[in-house]
Amino acid sequence: MNAISLFTFAHGGQHAADLASALSIPYSEIGVHRFPDGESRVTAPGATATSIVYCPLDRPNEKLVELMFASDALRRGGAGRLILVAPYLCYMRQDKAFHEGEAVSQQAMSRFLSSCFDRIVTVDTHLHRVSRIEDVFPDIEAQNLTAADAIADFAKGQGLGADVLVAGPDEESIQWARRVGNALGAEAIAGRKTRHGDRKVDIEFPDCNLEDRTVLLLDDIVSSGGTVLTAIARLKEAGAASVYLAVTHALFDAAMERRLREAGAVSIWSTTSVPHPTNEISLAPLLAEALRGEKVK
Amino acid sequence: MNAISLFTFAHGGQHAADLASALSIPYSEIGVHRFPDGESRVTAPGATATSIVYCPLDRPNEKLVELMFASDALRRGGAGRLILVAPYLCYMRQDKAFHEGEAVSQQAMSRFLSSCFDRIVTVDTHLHRVSRIEDVFPDIEAQNLTAADAIADFAKGQGLGADVLVAGPDEESIQWARRVGNALGAEAIAGRKTRHGDRKVDIEFPDCNLEDRTVLLLDDIVSSGGTVLTAIARLKEAGAASVYLAVTHALFDAAMERRLREAGAVSIWSTTSVPHPTNEISLAPLLAEALRGEKVK
Repeated sequence: MNAISLFTFAHGGQHAADLASALSIPYSEIGVHRFPDGESRVTAPGATATSIVYCPLDRPNEKLVELMFASDALRRGGAGRLILVAPYLCYMRQDKAFHEGEAVSQQAMSRFLSSCFDRIVTVDTHLHRVSRIEDVFPDIEAQNLTAADAIADFAKGQGLGADVLVAGPDEESIQWARRVGNALGAEAIAGRKTRHGDRKVDIEFPDCNLEDRTVLLLDDIVSSGGTVLTAIARLKEAGAASVYLAVTHALFDAAMERRLREAGAVSIWSTTSVPHPTNEISLAPLLAEALRGEKVK
Repeated sequence: MNAISLFTFAHGGQHAADLASALSIPYSEIGVHRFPDGESRVTAPGATATSIVYCPLDRPNEKLVELMFASDALRRGGAGRLILVAPYLCYMRQDKAFHEGEAVSQQAMSRFLSSCFDRIVTVDTHLHRVSRIEDVFPDIEAQNLTAADAIADFAKGQGLGADVLVAGPDEESIQWARRVGNALGAEAIAGRKTRHGDRKVDIEFPDCNLEDRTVLLLDDIVSSGGTVLTAIARLKEAGAASVYLAVTHALFDAAMERRLREAGAVSIWSTTSVPHPTNEISLAPLLAEALRGEKVK
């Protein structure tokens, strides 16, 4: 039995193979057969003492049940230590009941994933009131890596430097904007966002001279796309010469990608967290670094 | 706080309201909001000390995650005792790994549902090697009711009696065929099934005179429909005058319903287990009887 190997679902794509390669460990695909009645049969032969499951959890509901079955299959095959690599981790945003009777999906998800895995590794997960991932998953090991340095390195490679203005669309994104700004030696600002429903937002940037500036707009998650679309419009109105968009988790569809480009995004770069046409920034080195210690355990 | 009430998802339809009415307890719908990114927000206000969740688990993967959130919401609202009424219970068929690395979905499902509920009530669940539902769910209360008497009563009301031949398509359905046969005072037989893949089967009925007989064909689950379609063809070839089809869990689509009628099914009756156009046989009295004791707990 190999000491360690990586398992992935078909939807994990090439990125799982890249991670296995960065770690120099074997890699295989988890089989999923969908029966005509909507049930799934999951097969993961070749469990190793330490087994890593790679599973980006965008559009999660269907995937979660199959992930639970993969965990069952690997435990049954002898995996003593099961690690989930979910570069995008779902249901981390609702950490409180805002109305009577609301589920706190973050806590339900924590119990669910903790019953399946011994360690979780994720990237730029969007935490609010519960701000540390260790507090979200008190019963297992959990790490929230950041893609900020990978994004900054990529932007440098594309010729962006100290003269760029790094902008986050809202107060919550200032942490990433600052970190990328520091790495580039550039200034960082954040907008102020007002949200009206799932898709409608308004954004105000602080008073600063945007005239003829090159802006690197950063966000952790772009889903419906309303926030960054509005941010691009406001930046262009304020005179920005060009806006580059960098995103950790790209969840938006092709129609929104077109609208973002039409609004003025000269380039859209996303990390490999969620398989997406805009993927440019590999997370394999970052994830491999976090997981390298598992090889000698 | 009311002592007991029933909660249902929109997909539970009218059947949940019928059950609440049969129990004379309040009834409300669980709110599900789907965000653009594919996540769900679940709201279940008005938790009662004993809270019953009604959720048929056909096409289960998406529903299971929302069911877990409903459990979280109701516990959070103060429910001390949570009961799942899943007339159709998913993933009960794979109770063993047939190939290396296969998940045993029945056991994973048992752990999952046992972490959310204190009691499970289901109907005609399809068990094989683990034959008692109490053994599938060792940590919580679980009951597997049978719809056989409800089906027999309905068939009687439609004029079928002792002269009918009750037929199950395979050895596993003989238990239901016998019970319905006994209730009608009629003979019961079972076919012998050979399966080739998800959708292709062949069936042989025992030597008996089918010429001009009225047959009540019974099955617990009709999903792709291949089994009962073949059974109807064999019965008609052997000379059966008319074939009535009664099903506990109707999972088949409209195209298969047409094919079943074309093959010779003069009537197709299903129980209300899974909301379906062929629903004729209400399970509300059966479920209400099993749950009545909860009102005085």
